[in-house]
Amino acid sequence: MELFFLGTGSGVPSKERNVSSLALRMLEERGTTWIFDCGEGTQQQILHTNLRPRRIEVIFITHLHGDHIYGLPGLLSSRSFQGGETPVTVYGPRGLKEYIDISLQISGTHLRYPLYVEEVEEGILFEDDQFVVEAISLQHGLESYGYVLTEKDKIGELKPSKLKELGLDPGPIYQLIKSQSQTRLDNGQVIYRKDVLGPPKKGRKVSILGDTRYIPDLKYKVKDSDVLVHEATFASDENQMAYDYFHSTVHQAATLAKEANVRELILNHISSRYQGSALKQLETEARDIFAHTKIAYDFFQYPITRIT
Amino acid sequence: MELFFLGTGSGVPSKERNVSSLALRMLEERGTTWIFDCGEGTQQQILHTNLRPRRIEVIFITHLHGDHIYGLPGLLSSRSFQGGETPVTVYGPRGLKEYIDISLQISGTHLRYPLYVEEVEEGILFEDDQFVVEAISLQHGLESYGYVLTEKDKIGELKPSKLKELGLDPGPIYQLIKSQSQTRLDNGQVIYRKDVLGPPKKGRKVSILGDTRYIPDLKYKVKDSDVLVHEATFASDENQMAYDYFHSTVHQAATLAKEANVRELILNHISSRYQGSALKQLETEARDIFAHTKIAYDFFQYPITRIT
Ligand SMILES: [Zn+2]
Ligand SMILES: [Zn+2]
Repeated sequence: MELFFLGTGSGVPSKERNVSSLALRMLEERGTTWIFDCGEGTQQQILHTNLRPRRIEVIFITHLHGDHIYGLPGLLSSRSFQGGETPVTVYGPRGLKEYIDISLQISGTHLRYPLYVEEVEEGILFEDDQFVVEAISLQHGLESYGYVLTEKDKIGELKPSKLKELGLDPGPIYQLIKSQSQTRLDNGQVIYRKDVLGPPKKGRKVSILGDTRYIPDLKYKVKDSDVLVHEATFASDENQMAYDYFHSTVHQAATLAKEANVRELILNHISSRYQGSALKQLETEARDIFAHTKIAYDFFQYPITRIT
Repeated sequence: MELFFLGTGSGVPSKERNVSSLALRMLEERGTTWIFDCGEGTQQQILHTNLRPRRIEVIFITHLHGDHIYGLPGLLSSRSFQGGETPVTVYGPRGLKEYIDISLQISGTHLRYPLYVEEVEEGILFEDDQFVVEAISLQHGLESYGYVLTEKDKIGELKPSKLKELGLDPGPIYQLIKSQSQTRLDNGQVIYRKDVLGPPKKGRKVSILGDTRYIPDLKYKVKDSDVLVHEATFASDENQMAYDYFHSTVHQAATLAKEANVRELILNHISSRYQGSALKQLETEARDIFAHTKIAYDFFQYPITRIT
């Protein structure tokens, strides 16, 4: 499971940073990729990576500002053209369905895969055997959400050494033993799974927020995240600007990360005003408050490791 | 006046060619730029040029396929954000207005300049003291147009040598003499403008066509163009494919150029299947029929000179 930043700028594209998009690649976990926001040019950014549009399973839209959605019709169309056949679900605020429908319809685009558009409200969006995904309300000029992904804990791996101690050689029996809590062998012996397993794998928590003003109470929602992706449109001394434009400062993002006790903070949605030493300064401001901070850049990859 | 190709691919973007967009820069003629089609990523392509979105005066859309329009909302928005204040007019097929309106409205975008969207039919779109612009109907899967720009002839430049022969030194009087057919000087002498002018400047003709099947009768419309920009989605031996998908072959484009006696043919809308030697082969096929052929590539600039 790794984050792959496709566009890390704010508002308009620059030569250095494209508008918002972020991929969460889960090849190992489910063989698919989830996308968060899809600004114009996202499909072109993807061309420069080893991501494959046909692997996209879910697209989460945080809010409907152009720099977060104008790449959606193109990505959906090209995925069809390039042979994508599996379903895609797009989650996002009210209005998203009309935007997608009109864009595809007026351009005469017929997708060759099922597309589901789900307009969201605060709360649990879906849950399967791997993840629970929750939408949380933010404060922006228009409806904006954060998405909190909580991976479920998994039982540990079988320990071959323990199995061999019990006289069991590798074979289909291993899979059977892992699939149930106890297994009776042909010779009458009972194997308890808990005796032959390594430590359970703790599920990870990934919180990806859209554009927002600072909301102190968010700390309860993103608490203990393995990674928090947070906008940082303004420097620490631009509180009033951040408030007026419904954005956050670096100081605020770092404070939230600290209060929520996250493992890593990644600052995103960086204005093109910050480059070179000014960008370094943003990093310093953040790390003074919360040491485990990184500033995203286009094509930055961040593996989300498990705590062992 | 020069053409500046921003995206020369067909259907989906590739690393080599972005989707369709073409700028006609007229700094000298009117201080503005006209854009033809606006596929996704056009504004990002512009970032790598010296074109300025605020200079854009008119955008012509040939047809509503996604690869020709999905960059429009982003370009219009960013132009506003970057301080564009002069009006923009967008011409294109029916449905264009709804697409633009919905895209801007749902994303909460308020442009700080007047935007006019004009849905076109075959015929003259507008005429001013410099240009007549005509839309011509093409044959594509959906309504598609070509745009034929006819520049008006202009009187020649004043010839200083002639004026000096008549005893006139450079000064404001030169501008006065150029502005009227005859000028009476304080000493009673009459200067006839025709006697002091160089040769008239013949207006240029620029024909830019959208996606289309081959239509032999187009030769009457694009006759004697200084430059004809024509799609060439298929190689010469793919007649049936071209017909079925409402596109043209290289052979057909070159034939039209020859029949219409244009000065230069630029092939555009090139499939990413053609690269290296296959691309060279397209060029050879075209030049066998019409020698003055070029194949467009992203960021290709073509100055449209006057015949003197
Ligand atoms: Zn934004
Ligand atoms: Zn096309």
